[in-house]
Amino acid sequence: MKAAVYYGPNKLDVTEVAKPEPGPGTVQIKVGFNGICGTDLHEYFAGPIFVPTAPHPLTGQQLPLVMGHEFAGTITAVGPGVAGWAEGDRVAVEPIYRCGTCSACQAGNYNICAQIGFHGLMSDGGMAEYTVVPTNMLHKLPDNVSLQLGALVEPMSVAYHAATLGDPDPQGTAMVFGAGPIGIGLWFALRGKGIEDIYVVEPAPTRRAAIEALGARTLDPTAMDVPAFIAEHTSGRGADAVYDAAGVAPAVETALACVGARRPMVSVAIYEKPLTTPLLRLVMNESRIQGSLCYTSADFEAVINLMAQGTYDTTGWVTSIGIDDVVDEGFEALHAGAKMKVLVDPSN
Amino acid sequence: MKAAVYYGPNKLDVTEVAKPEPGPGTVQIKVGFNGICGTDLHEYFAGPIFVPTAPHPLTGQQLPLVMGHEFAGTITAVGPGVAGWAEGDRVAVEPIYRCGTCSACQAGNYNICAQIGFHGLMSDGGMAEYTVVPTNMLHKLPDNVSLQLGALVEPMSVAYHAATLGDPDPQGTAMVFGAGPIGIGLWFALRGKGIEDIYVVEPAPTRRAAIEALGARTLDPTAMDVPAFIAEHTSGRGADAVYDAAGVAPAVETALACVGARRPMVSVAIYEKPLTTPLLRLVMNESRIQGSLCYTSADFEAVINLMAQGTYDTTGWVTSIGIDDVVDEGFEALHAGAKMKVLVDPSN
Repeated sequence: MKAAVYYGPNKLDVTEVAKPEPGPGTVQIKVGFNGICGTDLHEYFAGPIFVPTAPHPLTGQQLPLVMGHEFAGTITAVGPGVAGWAEGDRVAVEPIYRCGTCSACQAGNYNICAQIGFHGLMSDGGMAEYTVVPTNMLHKLPDNVSLQLGALVEPMSVAYHAATLGDPDPQGTAMVFGAGPIGIGLWFALRGKGIEDIYVVEPAPTRRAAIEALGARTLDPTAMDVPAFIAEHTSGRGADAVYDAAGVAPAVETALACVGARRPMVSVAIYEKPLTTPLLRLVMNESRIQGSLCYTSADFEAVINLMAQGTYDTTGWVTSIGIDDVVDEGFEALHAGAKMKVLVDPSN
Repeated sequence: MKAAVYYGPNKLDVTEVAKPEPGPGTVQIKVGFNGICGTDLHEYFAGPIFVPTAPHPLTGQQLPLVMGHEFAGTITAVGPGVAGWAEGDRVAVEPIYRCGTCSACQAGNYNICAQIGFHGLMSDGGMAEYTVVPTNMLHKLPDNVSLQLGALVEPMSVAYHAATLGDPDPQGTAMVFGAGPIGIGLWFALRGKGIEDIYVVEPAPTRRAAIEALGARTLDPTAMDVPAFIAEHTSGRGADAVYDAAGVAPAVETALACVGARRPMVSVAIYEKPLTTPLLRLVMNESRIQGSLCYTSADFEAVINLMAQGTYDTTGWVTSIGIDDVVDEGFEALHAGAKMKVLVDPSN
């Protein structure tokens, strides 16, 4: 079968590999679509970062690997001992391997498991015609949720998890900094949670236009005083929940100047380096910065339910390509900012 | 009467001023002791910062002012309409003026009132033989709590409030960064809350020695790998609650490397400028930075109760001086690091 195999920086080859067969407790999936993630870009241009160069403790796998951890597809075979899943089931895959024994896992927070692994970073993933995963990664897709949307459940769950950690009040004002895929996912998640008063702060005109086309209200921080606007808009209370999906110093500084007393700025960004951060802002109104990482199964279920209700819309920000174009039309186009989200169809 | 009047940077004069008389709803207090705070030092060496140069909206007062917001004393006269307080009552003063109408005040968090004022920064304060305060600032001192301890209720409440915001688990490991007066107060507060496993991180040998003499365990971050030690000590879980009372970048960086998954670093420091902060630490284990400012009446009551139980000890870190020595033996000695906490007796 065809697969996109990652060998190291700037080396991702679409090549023929053996079709994987399901072992005990696992299923074989024919991948419908697999999204390219910012993490994948980091691996491609600057890796290996997460991809292990020695056998991973949970998967036993290492470089080279089939990439891809954002995917949905159809079960084509079930392994020995598998109950409750059958050939033909349409599924989204929650790609986390967890140890199950560390304190985070025992508290139910396996998204911060000390040994965490991802299917498609620490094992052969979804940029292939077929992949094999354990059944605890499976989430059934309703009939009215397409496999394109199904491939977006993973990144949308990253955003939904962060949205929840901000404990937003439906009567309050929420703010999203950064209108990339996670920022878009935050906007959908907040809408899904019943929040109506949302502002998306984004300096790039193309990204503002994309999220505006989905119905969002945006603010251009290069053209206005965002904290002054929010102070006025909230009668001095400040924003109820603020989300940083930009990961750069100007966004953090502006976000902390907007967040209300005793309220959070949730960080759902990969900060490439330590930022100059005005911590005094936190002290003066007892606000906080809360980190958010990945998701757990509850987030997957919530996103799938909202997708079935029609909350999510791929118009204008999601592009599908065939696997042979994965480097040029995928990684390079994303890196150049020419596309926002790319889904790879491994069978085309 | 004698008072220490602040006129601006490097100008604090001990001089004769009129003895204040209580108006409706206020009491006159003969001050026993008044502590010099870090905020006072900032005003003296780099102010006016908090001291208003135009009439404060809540107090109507402005520069010049009698300094001093950490004090305890004895009621010597009660104003018209005052009930429940009498001449001879020994009291600690919670020096916050609040508007009562902003969203923070209405939520009970008047410590972050949008218009907050402090008695002794926005009105004539406690570095005087007598001062007059509204009755909502009064907290009765038990007979076994001295006026020296009473003058420490204010800074110890700053620390107690922060300790509470860290939601520490009696079975967990707590860490305090910085062994100045607030760090010492955090150690006492955590002990008072039943936490036994506490490490105080402090690079200065004299400060380590002072808090060790009170019974604390300390770590010298210049001589050891503190995060590695805590990881080992907690079997990889990390610290349950971490407090930054140092306010400098190395402390914040080390603190964030120690805090456990989903647990807080509480900031109770005045960061003079934005620090380079490794926010990625927060994301990777969903920890948080929580700001803490001042206190409310519940903190005052909790500290006074603990003082009555003998939790607090002034040995080795608190010095009392007469008001005539306030500049040389007070402000200058504190600034030079020759003393840790100075209480001024306005009648000596």
